[in-house]
Amino acid sequence: MRKIIVQKFGGTSVADTEKIKNVAKTVIKEKQNGNDVVVVVSAMGHTTDYLVKMAKDLSPNPSGREMDMLLSTGEGVSIALLAMAIQAEGYEAISFNAMQIGIMTENVHSKARIVDIKTDKLRKNLNDGKIIVVAGFQGVTEDGEITTLGRGGSDTSAVALAAALNAERCDIYTDVEGVYTTDPRVVPNASRLNEISYEEMLELAHAGANVLHPRSVETAKQFNVPMRVRSSFKLDNMGTLILGVEKMEIYKPVAGVAADLSQARIVVCDVPDKPGVAAKLFTTLAKDNISVDMIIQSYARKISNTNDIAFTVDTADLSKTVAALENLKSDLGTEGDIQVDENIAKVSIVGAGMIDRPGVASTMFETLAQQGINIRMISTSEIKISCLVDKEDAKRAVQALHKVFELESDILAEVKGDLPNV
Amino acid sequence: MRKIIVQKFGGTSVADTEKIKNVAKTVIKEKQNGNDVVVVVSAMGHTTDYLVKMAKDLSPNPSGREMDMLLSTGEGVSIALLAMAIQAEGYEAISFNAMQIGIMTENVHSKARIVDIKTDKLRKNLNDGKIIVVAGFQGVTEDGEITTLGRGGSDTSAVALAAALNAERCDIYTDVEGVYTTDPRVVPNASRLNEISYEEMLELAHAGANVLHPRSVETAKQFNVPMRVRSSFKLDNMGTLILGVEKMEIYKPVAGVAADLSQARIVVCDVPDKPGVAAKLFTTLAKDNISVDMIIQSYARKISNTNDIAFTVDTADLSKTVAALENLKSDLGTEGDIQVDENIAKVSIVGAGMIDRPGVASTMFETLAQQGINIRMISTSEIKISCLVDKEDAKRAVQALHKVFELESDILAEVKGDLPNV
Repeated sequence: MRKIIVQKFGGTSVADTEKIKNVAKTVIKEKQNGNDVVVVVSAMGHTTDYLVKMAKDLSPNPSGREMDMLLSTGEGVSIALLAMAIQAEGYEAISFNAMQIGIMTENVHSKARIVDIKTDKLRKNLNDGKIIVVAGFQGVTEDGEITTLGRGGSDTSAVALAAALNAERCDIYTDVEGVYTTDPRVVPNASRLNEISYEEMLELAHAGANVLHPRSVETAKQFNVPMRVRSSFKLDNMGTLILGVEKMEIYKPVAGVAADLSQARIVVCDVPDKPGVAAKLFTTLAKDNISVDMIIQSYARKISNTNDIAFTVDTADLSKTVAALENLKSDLGTEGDIQVDENIAKVSIVGAGMIDRPGVASTMFETLAQQGINIRMISTSEIKISCLVDKEDAKRAVQALHKVFELESDILAEVKGDLPNV
Repeated sequence: MRKIIVQKFGGTSVADTEKIKNVAKTVIKEKQNGNDVVVVVSAMGHTTDYLVKMAKDLSPNPSGREMDMLLSTGEGVSIALLAMAIQAEGYEAISFNAMQIGIMTENVHSKARIVDIKTDKLRKNLNDGKIIVVAGFQGVTEDGEITTLGRGGSDTSAVALAAALNAERCDIYTDVEGVYTTDPRVVPNASRLNEISYEEMLELAHAGANVLHPRSVETAKQFNVPMRVRSSFKLDNMGTLILGVEKMEIYKPVAGVAADLSQARIVVCDVPDKPGVAAKLFTTLAKDNISVDMIIQSYARKISNTNDIAFTVDTADLSKTVAALENLKSDLGTEGDIQVDENIAKVSIVGAGMIDRPGVASTMFETLAQQGINIRMISTSEIKISCLVDKEDAKRAVQALHKVFELESDILAEVKGDLPNV
């Protein structure tokens, strides 16, 4: 049986008709390799911004249903154009939107989750030798309502299609060349990883590496679909393969270093040391849809019988969080301060190899100490260690850790865009 | 039971968000009148041109299926935006594309005909008090393929929806104020008709009055749906009501005068006078999709036993027609000339009233004679008389006929655009 490759091209890769022609060539190359090809595309370039602007002109708060109707048209344009471009090269191609295929989602607008994908139409057209072009980002409910999948939606569409079709691989074509050991704008000789495990990729994504949305990686992990992240523009570069740790050839204790500058630290002081207090606090925040990242509760003070609870949230949620906490104070029986610190950064090392190699954490702490960097909070998972440091120390921390864990490449990465103020 | 009004707004009426806000107000006004409202919209302004241009960039001859996929996105944008604009005014609205409703068409691309419209979703949402916004111009086949209806498609969608819902009326909002007795650019005191019959409207449309595509009028006639053509921008003007002749209050012998400058005359000379020759000629042209309008066959010449066949075609089909005729010549057993004359115009008078009032034709011929205008060919139907004249005589012919049949208004029509060279 022929192998199926799912390819996904983002908005910048299909931004104009010249770029669409290039995508058509890349697609055809895969077909010429003897594989069946399903291509998932996003809306062209700035289409979504343009549609959102018109919606805002008409309504301060447009309904989620109509926004999904509106935004789903963007992919409708790019799938038809890509199918035409492939046909113009002499290959058979056919485009489908989510409704035509049956990319079934839950009945939620603007961030629906895929619950099922029908494959009969896809299999029939692949068997007929056609290249199939599918609209990413969109879905349909049982009642025929159009939905969209939210941020990272097209990546998720591609991975879910690959899972449904039992595809050999899902290739995500993008404007970066792969997954790096750290941000090349911070460490110019950061190296591109040939392979990384789903778990490492997820931890890196959550730790601030913006290559892939965690949702698509989680879906790939769930269905064990190998993903490859690679450049739309440099096809000789094979990018980074993301796969199950059991399939990886070799791995170092640490695969990558990441810094996340978008967190703020909150300390709720003098909280009574009795059962249920922390639960009440975090349940309240969860109800307000606030994601909490690192959490530390201090030892109870013997004399006052209180302790402090510290945690980090995304700065976008900061004012919402503080408002929720002020309301909670009397309920918690505390009159203590709520301290906010935005001058922080979370620096993380990630690696599946640290599980069976002791000493990784102590190396990290020693390295930061040698640099005179004060650690404000620590949290760990099986394959990640994160330290909260002052914002101005983040860049030095990343550079030192990248060096000590031997992640450097001999090749200087090509840096696009401005150096962030890390 | 509440009455249902179907409204249709074309591309210029929804060209930008300000205009969409105005359309929303017009829609709401009809709802405030106590009616249920279904609105059909076309793609915004120049969207279709823009999409076609991109398609041509990619392929000299894009597939009909993918063109339909592409073009149908245009209406997807305008329905969602209009629904948002109505909601912003505090009214409930919901948009649907053709696939969601089930506007079923035959399986033909770029000019499909509607075969059925499902009404359950429409009726349910009208009963819930919602204003329904429907994508015009598009349909779907039984296999879930997206189709488009071709020129005048959104008008046809609107009339077909009105028929399926047994609506009170179908209002076509456009950039003209109604149907005029003739082109106001040729006769400045042309008058707007309050009423016109389907049959007259069809003859006027075919005779060169571009207000409505004949297909939508034919559909309205078939299902006896009253249509009203009115201005999107001058709402105090009630426009022109198009309805069955039996429902008309009064009618003059002649309702309107039209000139069609897009025809060319072809004469095939010295054709053998035997059975089957004309049939062979016109069957050949029909196979090449060439529409023939006026046809005249001269009396057979006794000596040579041949005659001439003259007919008119659209100038767009002229070269195709001549090529087909040259191929046919040996088959027809003629070596006669094929004469082509593009310097002609077809001037027509249309009126349901001429059926039972003799003398209309002779008045027309006399009027032209008084103007010194030579009549080259004549054709008649029940409610139309057309004369072929030289192009330079067309304007004078229209003016004289408009006057003699008392079609003038006291009010000078507001003329938009340049005077055509009639």
